[in-house]
Amino acid sequence: MAARKGNLMSVRTDVKVFDATVRDGGLCNNFEFTDEFVTELYKTNIKSGVDYMEFGYRASKKMFDVNKFGKWKFCDESDIRNIVGENISDLKISVMADVGRCDFKEDFVPKAESVIDMVRVACYIHQIPAAIEMIEYFHALGYETTCNIMAISQAANDQIDEALDMLGQSSVDVIYLVDSYGSLYPENAAKLAKKYLEAGGKYGKAIGFHAHNNQNLAFANTIETLSYGVSYLDATAQGMGRGAGNCQMELLLSFLRNPKYNLYSLLTFIEEYMLPLKAGGVQWGYDIQYMLTGQLNRHPREAMAFTADRRVDYCEFYKSLLDNF
Amino acid sequence: MAARKGNLMSVRTDVKVFDATVRDGGLCNNFEFTDEFVTELYKTNIKSGVDYMEFGYRASKKMFDVNKFGKWKFCDESDIRNIVGENISDLKISVMADVGRCDFKEDFVPKAESVIDMVRVACYIHQIPAAIEMIEYFHALGYETTCNIMAISQAANDQIDEALDMLGQSSVDVIYLVDSYGSLYPENAAKLAKKYLEAGGKYGKAIGFHAHNNQNLAFANTIETLSYGVSYLDATAQGMGRGAGNCQMELLLSFLRNPKYNLYSLLTFIEEYMLPLKAGGVQWGYDIQYMLTGQLNRHPREAMAFTADRRVDYCEFYKSLLDNF
Repeated sequence: MAARKGNLMSVRTDVKVFDATVRDGGLCNNFEFTDEFVTELYKTNIKSGVDYMEFGYRASKKMFDVNKFGKWKFCDESDIRNIVGENISDLKISVMADVGRCDFKEDFVPKAESVIDMVRVACYIHQIPAAIEMIEYFHALGYETTCNIMAISQAANDQIDEALDMLGQSSVDVIYLVDSYGSLYPENAAKLAKKYLEAGGKYGKAIGFHAHNNQNLAFANTIETLSYGVSYLDATAQGMGRGAGNCQMELLLSFLRNPKYNLYSLLTFIEEYMLPLKAGGVQWGYDIQYMLTGQLNRHPREAMAFTADRRVDYCEFYKSLLDNF
Repeated sequence: MAARKGNLMSVRTDVKVFDATVRDGGLCNNFEFTDEFVTELYKTNIKSGVDYMEFGYRASKKMFDVNKFGKWKFCDESDIRNIVGENISDLKISVMADVGRCDFKEDFVPKAESVIDMVRVACYIHQIPAAIEMIEYFHALGYETTCNIMAISQAANDQIDEALDMLGQSSVDVIYLVDSYGSLYPENAAKLAKKYLEAGGKYGKAIGFHAHNNQNLAFANTIETLSYGVSYLDATAQGMGRGAGNCQMELLLSFLRNPKYNLYSLLTFIEEYMLPLKAGGVQWGYDIQYMLTGQLNRHPREAMAFTADRRVDYCEFYKSLLDNF
């Protein structure tokens, strides 16, 4: 078994804490955050020592109507600059670009003209060639890049091996293990992380982890993969994210021993901005319907519909899931 | 490193699932469950394949006023029989007896006259001699016994070694690792579990684990210790228990591969009985105030008061905790 890297008291200087609140959380409120919210989150991340903040997606305006989503689905350069100015801080700025859902050759300027530092390319495993095309394009423009291979719990082992080899030979900086369905147990997550880390070691790539909390394991899986050497760690304020949500930033910051990370600023933000959001009806977080889709290794869409309909008939829902295998 | 026992697909026939809903959950509602609730939970546990059900404490009626608590703080033989009759089922029945808070020599009849199968003796580590006195007494009466050493995260390593040796030489059947403050990370829990399992192997004792969910790790810690050989696993319906609550029974049953465990019956119970309880104002579950006491390895009493006062000023609370070290 691969050794753990560091221990529960040591500082891992390779760690990068990555705030995905606006991007993954945007899936809960149609990206309709106020400028005040995003500005205060930006300031909070700086004060908390967070390393990256993702502002949203840069989705295709041909495919998605700009009048039907908040602006963080598109992340115009001017909208980001409106929050961060020239971003005179150590916090790096990221946007996500989905394979097949962005116009990457039209919508990105060279890094020298942009306030964005990193573009994260999200794809399913069969889209790796398309992802690599985008990664090389963004890399040539001067951006840091990641490849976030989603729904990894449904990929075959040999597919994953091939994907890691292909990405290893690309210009990508970070390869992300993404548990989209929240179906991994820590032992699964550790096993996959070791596979990614082995490829990362061979090709000189960092490895990241993005969790979902369907089985209340988002934080546990994050620190488990961290312990073996995963270094880019996604989290969101109060775990805000699609369905059961993500790894809670407050748990992650309280776990890390590097004194640069500061929990207090985040608690202030949660009090002032996250609680009103939740009180206003935006929904996310662990619940039984998400546990069931996670356990069955399924997309959470049915659980999200169940939640949206304010249903609590878990038994009927469970039966319907089992009927639709 | 000790090897894991079994894998994520195998059945561990040594596992005993232990429902502590009425006992630990009783700390949330002053043990005021209706007879209907307890009866339906009993039936649910039988249908779900749960191995043990704890009905509550058998607390001293000299120390605690019977008019000020629900009956499950005292667990009179007649009250249990009123629910289970002669308990013609495979589900075993337990009560908990706290060192220093029960009249064990007066309040227990011989096992042959009782419907109770197991007495769990709860103590802090300095009370091990008192616990052993009780264990020997209950053992002589014919009961299965456990020793639940609480607040283990505050015990010194050499104290734990001595306690395990003393218990190893006693008549106790099961030694429980209890993370009362919810402060253990999976790595801590695994390390302690291996220590307990080593003593258990030497002396022929089974090992149990009782989690608290302060850092959203109750389920993760439970399956982590399980993987190394811990076999008595405490859980409660929807994690109902003091403060942040316990390991969720629904997560545990969905994890275990033994086909005797059945999630569906539990979902029915949750729909019909747990949701109304929560809707009626009984409070438990992960929240930031519990994360903070867990992270600081503290008793949750201040977090419970914060919750009871419906406060959400996490920052002030955090500062007050840091002031009172």
